[in-house]
Amino acid sequence: MDKSSPPPSFAAIRAMLAEMPPPDLDAGAAAREREAQLTKPAGSLGRLEEIAEWLATWQGRHPPAVERPLAVVFAGNHGVVGQGISAFPQAVTAQMVANFQAGGAAVNQLCQTFGVGLKVYELALEHPTRDITGDAAMEEDDCAAIMIYGMEAVAEGPDLLCIGEMGIGNTTVAAAIAHALHGGRAEDWVGPGTGLDAGGVAHKAEVVRRALECHAGELDDPLEVLRRLGGREIAGMCGAILAARLARVPVLIDGYVASAAAAILHAADTGALDHCMAAHRSAEPAHGALLDRLGKRPILDLGMRLGEASGAVLAAATVMAAARVHAGMATFASAGVSGKEG
Amino acid sequence: MDKSSPPPSFAAIRAMLAEMPPPDLDAGAAAREREAQLTKPAGSLGRLEEIAEWLATWQGRHPPAVERPLAVVFAGNHGVVGQGISAFPQAVTAQMVANFQAGGAAVNQLCQTFGVGLKVYELALEHPTRDITGDAAMEEDDCAAIMIYGMEAVAEGPDLLCIGEMGIGNTTVAAAIAHALHGGRAEDWVGPGTGLDAGGVAHKAEVVRRALECHAGELDDPLEVLRRLGGREIAGMCGAILAARLARVPVLIDGYVASAAAAILHAADTGALDHCMAAHRSAEPAHGALLDRLGKRPILDLGMRLGEASGAVLAAATVMAAARVHAGMATFASAGVSGKEG
Repeated sequence: MDKSSPPPSFAAIRAMLAEMPPPDLDAGAAAREREAQLTKPAGSLGRLEEIAEWLATWQGRHPPAVERPLAVVFAGNHGVVGQGISAFPQAVTAQMVANFQAGGAAVNQLCQTFGVGLKVYELALEHPTRDITGDAAMEEDDCAAIMIYGMEAVAEGPDLLCIGEMGIGNTTVAAAIAHALHGGRAEDWVGPGTGLDAGGVAHKAEVVRRALECHAGELDDPLEVLRRLGGREIAGMCGAILAARLARVPVLIDGYVASAAAAILHAADTGALDHCMAAHRSAEPAHGALLDRLGKRPILDLGMRLGEASGAVLAAATVMAAARVHAGMATFASAGVSGKEG
Repeated sequence: MDKSSPPPSFAAIRAMLAEMPPPDLDAGAAAREREAQLTKPAGSLGRLEEIAEWLATWQGRHPPAVERPLAVVFAGNHGVVGQGISAFPQAVTAQMVANFQAGGAAVNQLCQTFGVGLKVYELALEHPTRDITGDAAMEEDDCAAIMIYGMEAVAEGPDLLCIGEMGIGNTTVAAAIAHALHGGRAEDWVGPGTGLDAGGVAHKAEVVRRALECHAGELDDPLEVLRRLGGREIAGMCGAILAARLARVPVLIDGYVASAAAAILHAADTGALDHCMAAHRSAEPAHGALLDRLGKRPILDLGMRLGEASGAVLAAATVMAAARVHAGMATFASAGVSGKEG
């Protein structure tokens, strides 16, 4: 960075939030019009029809196409792990990043199955964010810089973006963010994560409660919620989702932690997720409630709770199918098929 | 057929039902054992883990693989269409078969998206089965011959079979079968099909009621339910599902009509569908109730109601992903990833 430029700040993020492009309603209307002519009873493809219209609306073209789908996985570490809120040691974050790079993780196999690209963003894993029960996770310049770094996710021109993460301890961070944004009790937003027992979940709720107490009175601004409760992979995902909106790339949000990142943007602007669909409903108990607050109905509900964009890539298969069906089917007229009677 | 052989009969079908192979519990156990070693928290892939074990159990091998998935679509016509129970004219069945052959239907695009083969079985469309409100749909030799013809579905050695159908009027037939097998009222089993309004649905229930009255006292034997209430595509699907069991090919059952075919086998032997999964829950209102009776939890729930194996092929993508993830992921040991603490 040029030494004369000011440090990255939330002002730059707010400026981008103010410039989000609206839906392309003409492309959406063209999708609806074509859908009515395809050789099937009206509405009989259910959510595939909704997905085709959503793709057209947010890609800003008709017919929509998914030919360069990309999964981005942001990885971060968290000081709050010192509070004993995860079933796995912090070293696993870096080990799993190495596993992604070696092709051994679930997301690698899913991406290979469906021809989805994969990029992994490793965010200073050797320097965990500060423990949110006693301090803000990040400074504003760090947080804004990571958001801007996350915007690289659309640099190579994907036409569908699957957003995911890896970070030991980050369901605690997600719970803290959801609690800060949506109220209720800490217990409403915590769950077993990678495998806590009931006592571990109760302790996790207590840690979330203490984090909220520590930052009480400072959580009115969603970007401040992000900065204080962290962590870096959440900031990276926020940047990626926002960049996708600016670049007209529809987004599939993975699980609970990715949804917490999305919730930051939604709290800043309730229209900020209109280009996003929820890929699936995670088995993490609070995910359904968080999706309800975001107004999102998940595509899949398979009891998955792995993160690493796994649910988003699996849902991408359905989105790719919706695009192919919409663009490739014959019409009643072209196929010589009789329409509905009466 | 050799003129000296006896006509096809249900005795041959019953003999096959008596010889269905059991699950390969060793292959299933091997899948569970490997699943526990893969680089992810236990259970975190949800139903993908269940699917991998199911594939191993019913393919009878570990690891399972899906490399030759096949969709089979059986098409038939129905005399009961004369009762005015469909929103589309009967000619559409043959027109859609031509559309399948030309590559213009939804199932063609879905098969192309996921590399699934497609075979269409056209069953004497010019000769609809008899109107079930006044007669049996078929004679036993016709019905048995079509079941045996349907067994051709596994001739080319698929390793996953997607079962679907096309037939104007066949949600009425499916409703009659479900009502005959599972009781309740006719209204419980009918729905809009390809697009009836409320009056049309009420009339459809009345037609189903009359069909059941016509065959009252003759519906204790599930194969007799099939013969009397028809139709040919249902018989073909029954044969295909049974043949898959005998050939150790796992099956994905598509929507309401395919589930009615499966229900015939289930009524004959409650274990006859153990090698099958329900691909999706159709928007046809009675499908969920029918799946409950069969003890099947659908993989997808996307409001689809098209038939033609469309839901099954879309679910096949998830099944293929489950197989790939299970076989291809690294283990904690091979990837050097730390396990759960404590």
